[in-house]
Amino acid sequence: MAKVSCELSMSLDGYVAGPNQTLEEPLGQGGERLHEWLFGLKAFRERHGMDGGEPGPDNDIVEEWNDASGAVVMGRRMFSGGEGPWEGDPNADGWWGDDPPFHAPVFVLTHHARQAVQKEGGTSYTFVTDGLESALDQARAAAGGKGVQIGGGASLVQQALKGGLLDELNIHLVPVLLGTGGVRLLEGLQPTELELTRVIESPQVTHLRYSAKR
Amino acid sequence: MAKVSCELSMSLDGYVAGPNQTLEEPLGQGGERLHEWLFGLKAFRERHGMDGGEPGPDNDIVEEWNDASGAVVMGRRMFSGGEGPWEGDPNADGWWGDDPPFHAPVFVLTHHARQAVQKEGGTSYTFVTDGLESALDQARAAAGGKGVQIGGGASLVQQALKGGLLDELNIHLVPVLLGTGGVRLLEGLQPTELELTRVIESPQVTHLRYSAKR
Repeated sequence: MAKVSCELSMSLDGYVAGPNQTLEEPLGQGGERLHEWLFGLKAFRERHGMDGGEPGPDNDIVEEWNDASGAVVMGRRMFSGGEGPWEGDPNADGWWGDDPPFHAPVFVLTHHARQAVQKEGGTSYTFVTDGLESALDQARAAAGGKGVQIGGGASLVQQALKGGLLDELNIHLVPVLLGTGGVRLLEGLQPTELELTRVIESPQVTHLRYSAKR
Repeated sequence: MAKVSCELSMSLDGYVAGPNQTLEEPLGQGGERLHEWLFGLKAFRERHGMDGGEPGPDNDIVEEWNDASGAVVMGRRMFSGGEGPWEGDPNADGWWGDDPPFHAPVFVLTHHARQAVQKEGGTSYTFVTDGLESALDQARAAAGGKGVQIGGGASLVQQALKGGLLDELNIHLVPVLLGTGGVRLLEGLQPTELELTRVIESPQVTHLRYSAKR
């Protein structure tokens, strides 16, 4: 069965986003810092329709992650920054414009049903109203034999961990303290033994892979 | 000048101790789990007056840490589990008996002055009432050219980080989620860039070394 994994850039003090998330600053104050290691990479730029960029171990990680993702599941708030009915959500078609970086089917968890949206470059948005397990089932069926990635946010990853639905947790640990406030990834969970299966290091970020025993 | 460092075993969700710390369970519920990687190691056992134990990369780390520590600074609560006047503190001479594992001068921060205590094996306890900077100065002077280790607890490490008094932060990241509650190491700090200077991995624990830019 397709592996369910997630990839999260996390500060050493455990944050995946800064405080005061807004439509203008969706990652919160200081949250962009957590993704800085990505922006210059060849694989990241390619994915976002740009030329150039750096090769290297960080890039290999992102290429691997891109190649492994056959479908994505994400929460409504991560998708648009909004909540409630779609009418009046200024970001109702997501943050990523006409050619989003997913290049795969994306399943968005929401309480508000709506028609699927087809974007360019292989990305589609399907809106799932009957919960995470259903979204994962649909994503597995759409992933073409590849893996399913839980894109976020933190609460969805927490839900997957609690429900024993996550096979693999990839933490990209950024050597920064984000400081007071923000969104912590690993909050309010039950005691859980993980298995460390891989460590790849670079000066910018330490790539930690854990198998979540199920 | 002698380097000031600290060594902390931390769960992936950021805890260095579990909830409900008591005299019987000083590391709190589940907190022992964070130190399990240490107990079987040759260097750890030797330090605690026991024979045998495992060599390997984890052991090399602990040997290095032992060799580098010329003096230790710790908080009162870590020292005895108590607070307030020493009279009536059942643990007033510390957790570690007559031959403590430090084998070096230890400076204990307290609001309650008392005479220094000499133990076996090179450990002494000196009680410092005029703050962390003074304790670090005394520790540096006593360290015989080696480094000074801030032994804990978390609040003392936080104070050192906030005050720009820490040169090096060694995190031994244990692949476990401790779950709800407990003591988080990296809490309430200011945004801070660190420099990742070393990663050593083993299946039990990932050893991360950060230089705290001052």
